[in-house]
Amino acid sequence: MADKIKKIAVLTSGGDSPGMNAAIRSVVRTCAYMKLECIAIYRGYQGMIEGDFKEMNARSVNNIINKGGTILKSARCEEFRTPEGRQKAHAQLLKNNIDGLVVIGGNGSFTGALKLNDEFNFPVIGIPGTIDNDILGTTYTLGFDTAINTVVDAIDKIRDTASSHNRLFFVEVMGRDVGHIALNAGVGAGAEEILIPEQNLGLDRLLDSLKRSKASGKSSSIVIVAEGDKTGKNVFELKEYVEEHLPIYDVRVSVLGHMQRGGNPTCFDRVLASRMGVKAVESLIEGKSNYMVGIRDNQLILTPISEAIKAHTAIDEELVRVSDIMST
Amino acid sequence: MADKIKKIAVLTSGGDSPGMNAAIRSVVRTCAYMKLECIAIYRGYQGMIEGDFKEMNARSVNNIINKGGTILKSARCEEFRTPEGRQKAHAQLLKNNIDGLVVIGGNGSFTGALKLNDEFNFPVIGIPGTIDNDILGTTYTLGFDTAINTVVDAIDKIRDTASSHNRLFFVEVMGRDVGHIALNAGVGAGAEEILIPEQNLGLDRLLDSLKRSKASGKSSSIVIVAEGDKTGKNVFELKEYVEEHLPIYDVRVSVLGHMQRGGNPTCFDRVLASRMGVKAVESLIEGKSNYMVGIRDNQLILTPISEAIKAHTAIDEELVRVSDIMST
Amino acid sequence: MADKIKKIAVLTSGGDSPGMNAAIRSVVRTCAYMKLECIAIYRGYQGMIEGDFKEMNARSVNNIINKGGTILKSARCEEFRTPEGRQKAHAQLLKNNIDGLVVIGGNGSFTGALKLNDEFNFPVIGIPGTIDNDILGTTYTLGFDTAINTVVDAIDKIRDTASSHNRLFFVEVMGRDVGHIALNAGVGAGAEEILIPEQNLGLDRLLDSLKRSKASGKSSSIVIVAEGDKTGKNVFELKEYVEEHLPIYDVRVSVLGHMQRGGNPTCFDRVLASRMGVKAVESLIEGKSNYMVGIRDNQLILTPISEAIKAHTAIDEELVRVSDIMST
Amino acid sequence: MADKIKKIAVLTSGGDSPGMNAAIRSVVRTCAYMKLECIAIYRGYQGMIEGDFKEMNARSVNNIINKGGTILKSARCEEFRTPEGRQKAHAQLLKNNIDGLVVIGGNGSFTGALKLNDEFNFPVIGIPGTIDNDILGTTYTLGFDTAINTVVDAIDKIRDTASSHNRLFFVEVMGRDVGHIALNAGVGAGAEEILIPEQNLGLDRLLDSLKRSKASGKSSSIVIVAEGDKTGKNVFELKEYVEEHLPIYDVRVSVLGHMQRGGNPTCFDRVLASRMGVKAVESLIEGKSNYMVGIRDNQLILTPISEAIKAHTAIDEELVRVSDIMST
Repeated sequence: MADKIKKIAVLTSGGDSPGMNAAIRSVVRTCAYMKLECIAIYRGYQGMIEGDFKEMNARSVNNIINKGGTILKSARCEEFRTPEGRQKAHAQLLKNNIDGLVVIGGNGSFTGALKLNDEFNFPVIGIPGTIDNDILGTTYTLGFDTAINTVVDAIDKIRDTASSHNRLFFVEVMGRDVGHIALNAGVGAGAEEILIPEQNLGLDRLLDSLKRSKASGKSSSIVIVAEGDKTGKNVFELKEYVEEHLPIYDVRVSVLGHMQRGGNPTCFDRVLASRMGVKAVESLIEGKSNYMVGIRDNQLILTPISEAIKAHTAIDEELVRVSDIMST
Repeated sequence: MADKIKKIAVLTSGGDSPGMNAAIRSVVRTCAYMKLECIAIYRGYQGMIEGDFKEMNARSVNNIINKGGTILKSARCEEFRTPEGRQKAHAQLLKNNIDGLVVIGGNGSFTGALKLNDEFNFPVIGIPGTIDNDILGTTYTLGFDTAINTVVDAIDKIRDTASSHNRLFFVEVMGRDVGHIALNAGVGAGAEEILIPEQNLGLDRLLDSLKRSKASGKSSSIVIVAEGDKTGKNVFELKEYVEEHLPIYDVRVSVLGHMQRGGNPTCFDRVLASRMGVKAVESLIEGKSNYMVGIRDNQLILTPISEAIKAHTAIDEELVRVSDIMST
Repeated sequence: MADKIKKIAVLTSGGDSPGMNAAIRSVVRTCAYMKLECIAIYRGYQGMIEGDFKEMNARSVNNIINKGGTILKSARCEEFRTPEGRQKAHAQLLKNNIDGLVVIGGNGSFTGALKLNDEFNFPVIGIPGTIDNDILGTTYTLGFDTAINTVVDAIDKIRDTASSHNRLFFVEVMGRDVGHIALNAGVGAGAEEILIPEQNLGLDRLLDSLKRSKASGKSSSIVIVAEGDKTGKNVFELKEYVEEHLPIYDVRVSVLGHMQRGGNPTCFDRVLASRMGVKAVESLIEGKSNYMVGIRDNQLILTPISEAIKAHTAIDEELVRVSDIMST
Repeated sequence: MADKIKKIAVLTSGGDSPGMNAAIRSVVRTCAYMKLECIAIYRGYQGMIEGDFKEMNARSVNNIINKGGTILKSARCEEFRTPEGRQKAHAQLLKNNIDGLVVIGGNGSFTGALKLNDEFNFPVIGIPGTIDNDILGTTYTLGFDTAINTVVDAIDKIRDTASSHNRLFFVEVMGRDVGHIALNAGVGAGAEEILIPEQNLGLDRLLDSLKRSKASGKSSSIVIVAEGDKTGKNVFELKEYVEEHLPIYDVRVSVLGHMQRGGNPTCFDRVLASRMGVKAVESLIEGKSNYMVGIRDNQLILTPISEAIKAHTAIDEELVRVSDIMST
């Protein structure tokens, strides 16, 4: 089986995340080390359909381990959602004698990989690249560690000005469906309250908490709000609500936005990407397909992609409790 | 004259800016060095009215040179705008035997200082602390250098993701009346276009520039928009306008917000603050009043506060031109 | 049992590490949340002997979660190594009605805690605070994540100048007995070779690797050397050796030194510290003693201190292999 | 005269400094804007002799404004010091139809440029790229602002651990002949004493200062030492000297080394580089030669290269005094 793989392709797809370049580098260098050919596919599945391919060698990935974003670009691709699109894509893979594919991305990207495997029996291995850390089968996704540090750095700055004026800030962070960034960065930044999609404790609790906080003598308060929080109010509406019901506060809003996706990856994300790239290539060599590489208990593991995309990772209840205690 | 000054007070007022703590430290330590007493006034003019004073010595300001915000807090104070409020404030200064005052802040804070001097002949010296860099009489205000680095760091991150998806970003930065942050950070971040309050070149020019940019093969574009830009559209409306008239672009918006006010001051701001604090105390000792300390040609200078608050610093036309050339 | 604990003390000991302040904050706030009294002991065991104690409440630890170092100071203490010293220390604990102790530190600090427990049956719980990540019973120690990011940031800067001049750099990082910092930061920084105390592959291998690297067209090379590497040569001697045997290289040396111990903790270290502090206090409340809090598979666990101090954590062989592959 | 210039070459030479890439980008883009051809010369004068040239267009310099080092590489070149070497170099310039040259570097690089002009009447303009800030004719050189921030960030980290252990640190920073980095970063980092090549106040003064510092209750002290300080002792010998004569201190040493040359340029350096690149190209177009672009009072100015290389910039006595006052 193992001797079948001679040429491996790699692509990035979906939202970009810090560490993707380190993972690309790892796939390319592992291929070089294993004497395999390596092909980069640009712009994800769109580039696969169009044959936007480039041969890579060990030197092609010099000086990218520390760069955010993805040198292979990323794109959404409607055509790949159609059987015709996937047929074109598969034809390009065959035409270029590619024996296996490494897909770096999130749930949507993995769904595409799964179809490629199901319909054409094409060997695919996934590497979880997303800042949301919401993929089953891995404790950490690539880019999550960088993103929470970016958020914490931004909130450290906001706290400077919040403390100087005794203000309350609502800070919106990424997370439409999951609150991992909000919860981790919120604990890391010493947030007063953290509003996440996974639980809605109600606005009364928020007001109570803010009242207690003021009474206890805190000079400033930061409330972290994930994009998908379930209070039914966005950060601007929350500001108005609190100003109306708790006029003791001078309230401000900050929406951190897309900077959360960028930045030089942390050491953690670079090491994780390097390890996952090796594992992905080795798994293809071993004849495995349809798995996602993950990390658990500091060991690399494989999870069937079909399992990985079934649901989002649940929120860590212990960390929710730690957050409550820390805002004493 | 000089031997009249035995006790100096210092306060911060208005919006906080990185470097204020370094300036407070400098005032306190210079007093200690000169064997003067030093009093900190908390919460700006509000604290002056309320007598929220604290004696400081050289050790009171340990480990603050590298902290953003202001340990003396800042606050807006309506009462100080009234003659009665200022009378109370002056009474507090007399009661505490204070002979001179250093005010760290922006235009509004200086206007207050000016009144204190005009009405009670009380010696005041100003230190320009604002991220906006809009005060006449100084090439640099405290906090400006830190703020433009914060903006540039954020845009570097945004560019990672912009390049990965070939996107156009509108990034809003601080600057209601002046475009210094937008212009400097825009050049520093390699922005395609920079929209500032000082000039309105019209939306057609923006569309032309973006068309040219796309045609020239740029993979991403960043447009910096100062809060007070004069196109008549905010960043969100600009996004809609461009998407409608230039559908070749996938457009996103980011509003950097209050993080621009915080963060550890840069070396430049720390050194500037240290120098200005010395000069402020020395000026009071020399019997000067009603001046603002500024820096020009790397030399500290004094400008009458009445001059400093007359107008905003004009935009640097040479830098506007550099920006145009760089976006070739 | 649980109702016996009414007052808990916390100290930091040994080399400081980023995250110690976040752990102190967590212990203090958890005590406040649980309605326990909390006492800070300054300067480690030395302060314990001298009774350098201070009552803490939830507000005592405001604004320290993001600070490097330890507000409780740390010190080595010869006297505590004697039975008389420990008796004095214990007497101070009794005199102050302290029911349990949280020790934040490394192996040496834990050995002290163990003796306190063995000799006086005094309840102690340890939190592993050291940048070395060498303590059995936890996948991560507090400060390790920050330290590897500090090293990687420094090497990213060194690589700028190395690449500009096609130079070879030997970079010495901390690690007298273990190579965890060297190995992780080396992979994260894309090092050519990583010399660690746990293995000595010989100088010939180093020369071979550097020759191959040059031949393959790399424009610069970074070799990471842990303080305790086993080649028998320090970084300066390595430089001379390579210059003599491989004159194709222009070699430079950089010793990163104590900056590796400082800096604002990363989000990872802040969250870990917050979680560990809660667990430590809860463990004392539950009547446990003589355990160290650790993290494994993202779950907090307890390990007997006697186990934790038995040996250093072994190097990760998989990561050694990843490092080899990445330097292709 | 102006219509003579159709093709401009740019090179970097000597020690690299952050902002060189931004200056290269500016030269290239200004040429594109002015419809001139632009040639990059790799590896400084060595590449000029060897004809290591490459055509550049506006897109060749995408995404380098924020990168440390120099994409054109730098190298020392013995051959260029000989008349024969310079003849070869000039022949390459002629062969490639180059009409003018922009040299980005320090004193040594400018001396080379001067000879090229003197011997062959070849138009040259210099841009001061060095972290040392020691070149006459400009208040700031490219890279200085980045370097002092790198030093200050490192010392902020060192102070964390210094304060935790009540230690004294000697920190060596770059500066063989000049103390600008030491003085500015020292003031910015709040150093106790700053030892620079320009003055030697003697070891007694150092001991006195450290005694006073201890007596005043400071918890830690940092002494900055420029490489070329004139006490006659290096940092390691200073440590021994102080430990012998002032045993109250636990002393440590840190040598910051080459990381001071790297790192992403600050906004200040990027803006300065962009402005200087425009000015350099415009000066060549205007028929000027043998000038260095500088900045004074925030205006770009030209200084004859022969003046610029005559001496080092003198140390700022006012800042020396500020440093003394701040360490009260």
